[in-house]
This record gives sequence, C-alpha cells and structure tokens, in this order.
Amino acid sequence: MSESLGVAVLGAGHMGADHVRRLARSVVGAHVVTVADPDRARAGAAVAGLGDVRVHADPLAALAEPGVGAVLVASPDHAHEEALLAALDRGLPVLSEKPLAHDAAAALRVVRAEARGGRRLIQVGFMRRYDTEYRRLKALLDAGGIGRPLLLHCRHRNVASPPHFTSATLISSSVSHEIDAARWLLGQEVTAVTVVRPRASASAPAGLQDPQLVLFETDAGAIVDVEVFVNCGFGYEVTCEAVGESGSARIGEEPAMVVRSAGRAQREIPRDYVVRFADAYDREVRAWVADAREGRVGGPSAWDGYAAAAVAEAGVRALNDGGRVEVDLAERPGLYR
Amino acid sequence: MSESLGVAVLGAGHMGADHVRRLARSVVGAHVVTVADPDRARAGAAVAGLGDVRVHADPLAALAEPGVGAVLVASPDHAHEEALLAALDRGLPVLSEKPLAHDAAAALRVVRAEARGGRRLIQVGFMRRYDTEYRRLKALLDAGGIGRPLLLHCRHRNVASPPHFTSATLISSSVSHEIDAARWLLGQEVTAVTVVRPRASASAPAGLQDPQLVLFETDAGAIVDVEVFVNCGFGYEVTCEAVGESGSARIGEEPAMVVRSAGRAQREIPRDYVVRFADAYDREVRAWVADAREGRVGGPSAWDGYAAAAVAEAGVRALNDGGRVEVDLAERPGLYR
Amino acid sequence: MSESLGVAVLGAGHMGADHVRRLARSVVGAHVVTVADPDRARAGAAVAGLGDVRVHADPLAALAEPGVGAVLVASPDHAHEEALLAALDRGLPVLSEKPLAHDAAAALRVVRAEARGGRRLIQVGFMRRYDTEYRRLKALLDAGGIGRPLLLHCRHRNVASPPHFTSATLISSSVSHEIDAARWLLGQEVTAVTVVRPRASASAPAGLQDPQLVLFETDAGAIVDVEVFVNCGFGYEVTCEAVGESGSARIGEEPAMVVRSAGRAQREIPRDYVVRFADAYDREVRAWVADAREGRVGGPSAWDGYAAAAVAEAGVRALNDGGRVEVDLAERPGLYR
Amino acid sequence: MSESLGVAVLGAGHMGADHVRRLARSVVGAHVVTVADPDRARAGAAVAGLGDVRVHADPLAALAEPGVGAVLVASPDHAHEEALLAALDRGLPVLSEKPLAHDAAAALRVVRAEARGGRRLIQVGFMRRYDTEYRRLKALLDAGGIGRPLLLHCRHRNVASPPHFTSATLISSSVSHEIDAARWLLGQEVTAVTVVRPRASASAPAGLQDPQLVLFETDAGAIVDVEVFVNCGFGYEVTCEAVGESGSARIGEEPAMVVRSAGRAQREIPRDYVVRFADAYDREVRAWVADAREGRVGGPSAWDGYAAAAVAEAGVRALNDGGRVEVDLAERPGLYR
Repeated sequence: MSESLGVAVLGAGHMGADHVRRLARSVVGAHVVTVADPDRARAGAAVAGLGDVRVHADPLAALAEPGVGAVLVASPDHAHEEALLAALDRGLPVLSEKPLAHDAAAALRVVRAEARGGRRLIQVGFMRRYDTEYRRLKALLDAGGIGRPLLLHCRHRNVASPPHFTSATLISSSVSHEIDAARWLLGQEVTAVTVVRPRASASAPAGLQDPQLVLFETDAGAIVDVEVFVNCGFGYEVTCEAVGESGSARIGEEPAMVVRSAGRAQREIPRDYVVRFADAYDREVRAWVADAREGRVGGPSAWDGYAAAAVAEAGVRALNDGGRVEVDLAERPGLYR
Repeated sequence: MSESLGVAVLGAGHMGADHVRRLARSVVGAHVVTVADPDRARAGAAVAGLGDVRVHADPLAALAEPGVGAVLVASPDHAHEEALLAALDRGLPVLSEKPLAHDAAAALRVVRAEARGGRRLIQVGFMRRYDTEYRRLKALLDAGGIGRPLLLHCRHRNVASPPHFTSATLISSSVSHEIDAARWLLGQEVTAVTVVRPRASASAPAGLQDPQLVLFETDAGAIVDVEVFVNCGFGYEVTCEAVGESGSARIGEEPAMVVRSAGRAQREIPRDYVVRFADAYDREVRAWVADAREGRVGGPSAWDGYAAAAVAEAGVRALNDGGRVEVDLAERPGLYR
Repeated sequence: MSESLGVAVLGAGHMGADHVRRLARSVVGAHVVTVADPDRARAGAAVAGLGDVRVHADPLAALAEPGVGAVLVASPDHAHEEALLAALDRGLPVLSEKPLAHDAAAALRVVRAEARGGRRLIQVGFMRRYDTEYRRLKALLDAGGIGRPLLLHCRHRNVASPPHFTSATLISSSVSHEIDAARWLLGQEVTAVTVVRPRASASAPAGLQDPQLVLFETDAGAIVDVEVFVNCGFGYEVTCEAVGESGSARIGEEPAMVVRSAGRAQREIPRDYVVRFADAYDREVRAWVADAREGRVGGPSAWDGYAAAAVAEAGVRALNDGGRVEVDLAERPGLYR
Repeated sequence: MSESLGVAVLGAGHMGADHVRRLARSVVGAHVVTVADPDRARAGAAVAGLGDVRVHADPLAALAEPGVGAVLVASPDHAHEEALLAALDRGLPVLSEKPLAHDAAAALRVVRAEARGGRRLIQVGFMRRYDTEYRRLKALLDAGGIGRPLLLHCRHRNVASPPHFTSATLISSSVSHEIDAARWLLGQEVTAVTVVRPRASASAPAGLQDPQLVLFETDAGAIVDVEVFVNCGFGYEVTCEAVGESGSARIGEEPAMVVRSAGRAQREIPRDYVVRFADAYDREVRAWVADAREGRVGGPSAWDGYAAAAVAEAGVRALNDGGRVEVDLAERPGLYR
C-alpha cells in the first residue's frame, strides 16, 4: 500500500474538528498535517494531542505546507470557492463539505475550473451516498427491483432548528441532501421545483415557514416530494420511499430495539444526524482517503455540488414567489458525463 | 328494541348484492323488503334464498312497497339523484353509496332538498369512517395527541384498475375517499387542489395518467398530499400519516402475520378493498340500521357527499388544466352546521 | 333460511351477560329465549330492554322453556357438567365457555356421554380459533407454507392478574388457550409438560409463580414453549411464532397505528382480551349459530375441551412437583376422529 | 498518541485472514508485524500486498519477532492454550477468538495462569458485546428500563450448518455466543442447563439434532431460553428479547429496507454473520487496539471465556443425557471480580 495521505483540514468548527478527530482515530492511511482556521486557538484545540500538526489562520498557507497530499474543506460556505480553486491549482484531491460553494454561480466557477484542468479532483460531502440503507435502496433501484421509479416520497425531520435558520435555509441546507439523494438514486436531473406552504407550526420560531412540502420534477418525469420539518419536536428522521412500476421500497423508518412498557411498544428515534449518519461520515472519509491514495476521486462530483446548488436556488425562488420554478442548469462539461 | 327495519335496496350490481347479503346475514335488526334493478333477473339473483323479497325494475315502485322503512342506494351514479329525492319525499332514511350524485350540481340539489325538509335523512357511504384504524387516528387527532395537524400524507394503491377507469376517475372515484377522510380527520374544508403528474407507469393502460400526486389545501392551512396509483401491481394499500405540531401518526401499513422464508421477512398485502375494509362496511351498515331504528341519521352527511364531489370536480379540472384550482363551495345550509 | 334460533344462556356473569348482548345485537339468526342465574336479579339485569326473555334461577328450568333450540353455557366451571349432560339429554346444540368442565375427569364424563349419543352437539369456547391472525397462521401451516412445524414460541401476557389467581390458575386458565391453540395449529396431541420457574416478578402478588415458562411436547415431536406472565404490567399481548422446516411465521405483535412523539415511534398495546379478541368472540358465536341452524356443530369439540383439561392438569402437577410430567389421555372415541 | 501497535496474528484461516485485513485497512493505530500458520503459504496469502510482514509456521517464533506488542489468536481451538500461555509469559495483550481454549479444563488453566500473573492481558472474542443493538439492550437493562430481568428469549438461526457440525457443536459453538451474551446482559452466572429436543428438521443432515431448545438458569433465578436452529434455511437471524418486571425489550428483528412487491411487504434477512456483525468485529478490534495502546485490557475476560466453556460443556452433557445438568464452576479468582 502507498504511504499515509497527509491532509490539510480547512476550518476547525464543529464539522472540521469532527473530521480531524475522524482522520486521526477512525481512518487508516491518512494523517492530519495541518489545520487552518481564522481563529487559530480553535484550530489548536482541534489538534490537541495529535502530535506534530501545524496550525494556520490562512488556508492558503496551510495548503502550502510540505506533506499536504489532500484537502478537506470544512470552512464556512463563502470560503469554499477560494480554497477549492487553490487546491485545483495545486492538483490536490479535495473533499468539500456541502455546499460546494456559497451559491450556484460560484459552484459553477469551481466546476469550470476543474473541467479546464481536465481531471476530477473534487468530491462533495453528500454523505448519504455512504449510508448503508441509501446504498441498499440505490442497489435495488439499479437492479430494477421495483421497476422504473416514478415517485420518491421523502421526509426530513429535525427536533428543532438552529437559531440562524430562515425559511430559505430549510431548502438550501436541509433539503439539499434530498436534492442530491434524489439525483443520485434516480440518475436524473431536477428540472423544476414547487414549494407548498402548510400553516407553520406553532412550535417553529415566529416567521419561519416550517414545515414545507417541496416538489421536484426530473428530466425523466419522476416526481419527488419532500416534507421538510425542522421543528417536528419528536426526533431526527430521514426517510425515503421510492415507488416504481412494480413495487416500492422504503428506508429510514425502523430503529432497531423494540421496548414494551406502559401500554406501548416503542422504538427510539435518534435525536440528530450524528447518531443516524455517524457511520456514513466514517465510510465517506475512508472511501475518499482510499481513493486519493490511489490517485482517484469518486463520490459526488463538483457537478453534483453545482446541480444541488442550482436546484436549491430554484427552490428558494419557488418558496418566495409561489408557483413552479424551472431549474436553469448550465451545460454539463464532458468531464462529468 | 324496536321492530326490524325493512330496507329497500336500489341496485343489484356488485355493491348492491353485497349489501343485500350483508343485511341478511350480518346485520341485526334489519331485513330486505325489496330490491330494484333495471335488470330484474339480476335483482332476483341477489335475493335468492332470502324468502319473501319483492323484486322491481323501477326503484320508485320499490320505495312504494309496504314495509319499507329505509333505503339503501347502490344503483349507478346517475340514478342516485332521483332515488334520493324520492326517499326524501317519503321521509325515509337513506344510506347512499358514494358518490352522493353524479356530479356536484346534482349533489347540491339533493343537499338543498334535504335542507328544505329540515331534518337529516341521508348518510353517504364513506366507509373509512368506520374502519378501526381510521377511527383510532381520528380519536388521536381529536384528543390533541400529536398537536394541531399540519400535513396528511396519503397513499391509495390498487393492484390494477378496472377497464373503465380514466385519468379523471382516479380522482373522482379513488381519491374521493381521501377527500372525505381528510375533511373528516381534520374537521376542515378543502379550498384548493393541485395535481402533479409523474411519468405514467408502463404498467398502466395507455393514456391513463397513473400515478398522480394530488395536493389539497384546507381552510385552516393544512396540506394533504395523496399518491393515487391504481396500477401499482403489488397490492391494495391505503395508508395515511398525519403530521402535527408535536408528533405524527400513521395507519394502514402493517398487515399482521410475519412470515420468514427464503431470505425474507414478509407480510402479505391485501389484494383489494374487500379484504382491507370488509369490517368497515359491516360496521357502517350496522351503525346506519341502529340509528335508523331510533329515528336518527349519523355518519357522513349529504353535505359531506356534496363537498367531496365539489373538491373532486376541482381536482379533475386541475388534472386537465394544470396548476392550482380553487374549490367553489356553496354556502353550507344550517342543517349541516 | 331457517327460522331464528332460540338460545338459553346459562350464567349471567361477565361472560354470560356479554354473550346475551352479543346474541341480541351482533348475531343474525338467533335470539335469547331465557337466561338462568342463581342470582335472578343479575339475570334480569342482563336481559333488560330485550323484550320477552324469561329469567330463571335454575338452569334446568331454563332448558325446559319452550322455544329453546340451543344452549350457551357461561356459568361457573363446576356447574358445566350438569348443564352439558342435560343439554345432551335434550339433544340441544351447546356452546360451552372454557373449560368444558371443572376438571379432566368431569370433562371425560361429558365426552363419553356425547359419544354415547353418537352425534356431536358440543362446541367449546376456545375463541382463538376464530381470530383472524390465528386463522391465517393455521392456513399457512396447513398449506405447508413453512414446512413441517417443529417449534411454537408463545407469549401470553396480561397487565395484572385478578385476585383469585393462583400459580396453578396461570396454567389451567391462561395457558389452556395455548394448549388448545397448539393442538389445533399443529393437529397433534400434547404428550408431556415441563414447567420452568424463573424468579417471580416483584410486581406479582406474593406467593404467585409469575412468570412461568411452560414446555409442551407433542406426539409428533414438536416442542411448544409458552411464556405466561399475568402481571407483566405493560399490556395484554398474545403472540405465537411457528418455526418450521423451511421458515417461520409469527402473529400477534403489531397493533396498527404508529405514533411518533417525544423521541419514540410507538404502537399501543391493548389492555385486555376484550380489545384483542372482540371480533373473535363475535365470529365464534356467529359461526355456532349458523351451524346450529343447519343442524351442525363445528369448532372445538368436547374432546378438545377434555384434552386441554388433561394437559393443563399435567401442567399443574409439573408446576408443583418439578420435572417432566407425561399426559395420560383417555382413548379418543370414534366420534372425534 | 502512542506509536502504532505491532500485532502478531496467529492463524491465517478464514477468521485470521479477516483480522489481518481488518488490522491493515480498518483499524487506526495498529499494524500487522507477523502472521503464523502451519500452512506458510496460507499465511503468505493473507499478508499479500501489506509490505514488510514476516511469516512463520510456528506461532512461538512469531511471538518472538521484534516489534510484536500484542497478539491476536485465530488459530484452531486446540492451539489456543499454548499460544495464550506463551503470550502471558511475555506480558503481551491478547485478543483470542472464541473459544478461549479447546475445553473448560484448558480454559481454567489459562485463567489461573493469568490470575497468577496478577494482571489482565486476555480478551475473548465475544463480539456481540460490540454490536450496537446488544449494547443498547445492555444499557437499557443497566438503567432499569424494564425493571429486573426475569427471562431472555433468544433465537440463533443459520441458513445451513457447515459439514463438521455435530449436535454438540450447536451448543459449544453457536449457543456459546448466547451463553456469553446472557451472562453479560444479566450480570449473572449460569447455574444449570436443560436441552429440549424437538423432532429434527428434515432439512438438517441425518443424525443432527437441529433445532434444539436450550434452557439456562442463572444464580439470580432468571431463565434463558435459546432456540438454536442452524439449518433454518431462510436466513441468519440472531434475536434476543429480555422480559423484565416492568417491560420487555427485543433486538435483532428488523433489517432496514422494506420492499413492497408482488403482494408482499418484505425485509431482507442477512445470509450470515458477516453481514449482521461486520461492524461489531470492527468495533471489537478497534477497542482492543485502543486499550492495548494505553496498557489496558477491556471486553470479555479469560474468566468469561472459561465460564462460557463450562456452561457449554454442561449443555452438551444435558443434550446427551437428557434432564437438567448443573454447571460446576471453579472459584472465581480475585482478578476477575
């Protein structure tokens, strides 16, 4: 096997620190060389106890460190574009947390820069593609197990939303996972979005349109409906039912242990994505490291990141303006076909 | 207890013959006095072995038979209005199979005729209100068990559609059950309809828009989405999930016996509504007979029948024209408040 | 159809009054002619509002009433034998609540009296044979759906036991249902019993051996294990898993509605058998009435009642003495082959 | 963090080769230094592509290699004792695949040798303790979530047994997992065993007593029943239901994806333990490596290995002789209290 992959981690917030810990403790074949964060103390805290890891305020300085063979981008959205372009310049494989960039236009610039380079270097962190259940559903669909898929019914529920969430964030941040999952599961592009607004829950912060029912149409005529409800109160629940011409398949509904007590047969619902998708994050980073060590890039591409951003932007317009909004996708460069 | 209720059954087709059998064998306190069907032989076959039951080609002649204390209307849709008006004239309690009449305008005439009479005589055959699971869900919602309801997700799937089904029939016949169930569960009126058209299944007859995703908005801001798929191939499945401000509740998904064999843990899905709703039909007719013997009428009213028809007509317009169609309901007479 | 069946109901306690109500309101083709109970006031209360029903303190006087065409025995156990022999004398079809008689010896006397008469008149009230799920399991086993059955795993759980329950009652009353169900599902006789005694639950009354694990062996080598736990606290739960040579099948575990709230996906467990087996009782009595009107007797026979009693007695000996106790069955009269 | 742990893997059969692969690819902080197998070619094949790993026919030679800091024993059962004693001699932490040794007497010699040394070095490979569902059940029991446990109902089913399986192997190999799981979940010792023999399945090899119902009693009065059925034909299924004084809890029954097709709602049952327990093996070895690097030993101890062996031997006697066999455990050395 080739030698250990030296990784520069950009961003030492919640996700960044989590990836540092993951690379150090759960991923074979990689080590953290450097961590960059404008808040150097935060970067230092993230690497405490890891031995010789250099800390920078400037991400470009981190990329320039000797021994850096790959980059993990977990900085704030608006910092992604510069970091990604720099990594492309240096020919470094990148795993970028979602979103790829702060808006669709920036994402498209990244796509075009990578396309100009002529080889794929960027993977986007849509970790559901590494979840065991999603993979099982994908395998079933690809094998024709329920015939051609016609509908996806998705639920994305959180106990409560963070303070900064706006009605648009429900689409651009939460539903963006479903956008990628739908594109991936179906192998189709999303062409139009409609957002239906039920009465807002009294449990949601004032002014927040929560829940929403978001409808996607694809270029092959499938329909995807997503209930997003980020103040559902009762648990973190991500489910997906695919309905095909000869059957349906559903994932995400049955946590394992059944407890009978006090007149109820109960299953616990996880509180957050850390419980539900912990293994998916591990698998994602392991796969990325294994690929990078062999000079390959797999997983969701920069194009996937751009397409998700473009669809999400159409979704936010549909939310704000009402009615159906068509998605205006750029032409797909040959690199991503 | 009062004496046995003499029932005139109008229509000796599948539903009519089934009701004759039910009244004779499964319902205490009622007996079939007469059956009318333009095809007298069919009427005769339906009452074979039941002793002294008179048979007519003309429904009005049946209503005039001595001993008739109530009417069960199971004739074709276009014959309902005349029969219902005649029953109202005679002051007879009626159980009318759905739809109340052949269109919303006719249904409204029936409503107004009953309202003029000043007392309720008509019950419409929306039998889901008598299904154990629906009743449990209704009780939970009424008790505030999941907070104020915001969304209903409904699935209505049949193995295969009968030959006469058109794209509009999916709404006017199949989805009409969900229209009534939603109005009843929520205690709200439907104010607008949108129909989303996925690619049609290759398993559906050519030209049939199947499946459809039908969206309803209510006067309290709840959203109801219905997947109707009448050629799903795999079974008869009617499910409903209510999502409220503090929880969700779902019915209809778990047939009872789990069989493990050949690498699968399996539950059988019923083939048709006869299996799924057999008990509901029995309960419906028993409740109607019990009420009629005490001079009362309960269950879904003529107004419910009219409202379902008006919503379904808006749905068919939405299907044909695209976009969102508002429901134009007449004013509700005081009798139904 | 023949005329309505006149029924004498013996015993106006909880079960008797329930059967009176059932015959009057839920069963077509029968009417209650007379009710007997040593407590005439209780008998009178049971028939209030039913019109002309005669009331007796003496069961034999009730049997002698004109118009009595069948007998439903719901009196205390020790009164069964005399009532059953009297009904046999008069050639009346009988539905006897379980147990058939107060002990196996008395049950055997009833069996022999019926056998002498040369035709079956007695049905025993093992109502599980009329439960939809049990019938589905029976049909699966008979069709060879899981191959030859090798094991039955049964659970019989009650929230709390009535005051009169002794350790032996758990077997003679609760487990007697599993004894009949196992004999019926497998079509085999039970040949030996072992009772394993876990530590008693602190929630059970002092001195009560609860739970118990009761093991049955059959003449075809199948093993049946029954957890009986009548103070389980959390609900009424009766489940059965059959394990065969090519698969397994389980019933009784999944009540219908799933409610998500407060971090849990929950299903309600019924509180008692009235909820769980209400429909089975209705079906049982309807089937008995329909048979009786055609001069037939179906369902569990007097032999089944005797065999259950004999097995239960062996079980109580096994409970008291420890170890394995063989069941000593009398020879089966030809009438029951 | 301390430096990477050098591991000697003894045995390059199925399990050994799997552990080599696991250490190389899935476990951070360890590397394989040497592999020993009497079949040197097999050892060589296991380490192909791993770089500088030395290969031996003699396990003791492997232990003597420089850089060996820990030992993973995956050799045949009869070779365990010598390897374990040698590792103890050298003060090396060991992960030994189950069983600890080829019989209880040998296991006890290992226990005593470790006890003489005065510190724990040995962990036994009962990997269920690292399975997410088992851990959840353990946490629930420890938290008193269902009150004091009274019964465990276990199922251990395999599609088909390997050729070398005897009736005794069902207990000593398959059920040994349940023995450890029960001791661990309950925190109690097993004091007696009874084996009930249903008719053997026609699908099992001639002469094999399969299935078996194995009953354990514990020193706190709990009862454990285990259905072991290693030719069940339909899948690999390991389930456990704990019944306590105030509720029950069950794990292992609900694989994730539900597919509806052809009249069935189906869940796939895994084919073998590799699917079901893959993550548990990974977690086990990761935990062992992490502990060893910090000079600790956790997980199931040599005493657990000995106790499982002693209970299994009593079980085999119970199988052969019939009746109830008491477990004769040696006194537990202070090291394991």
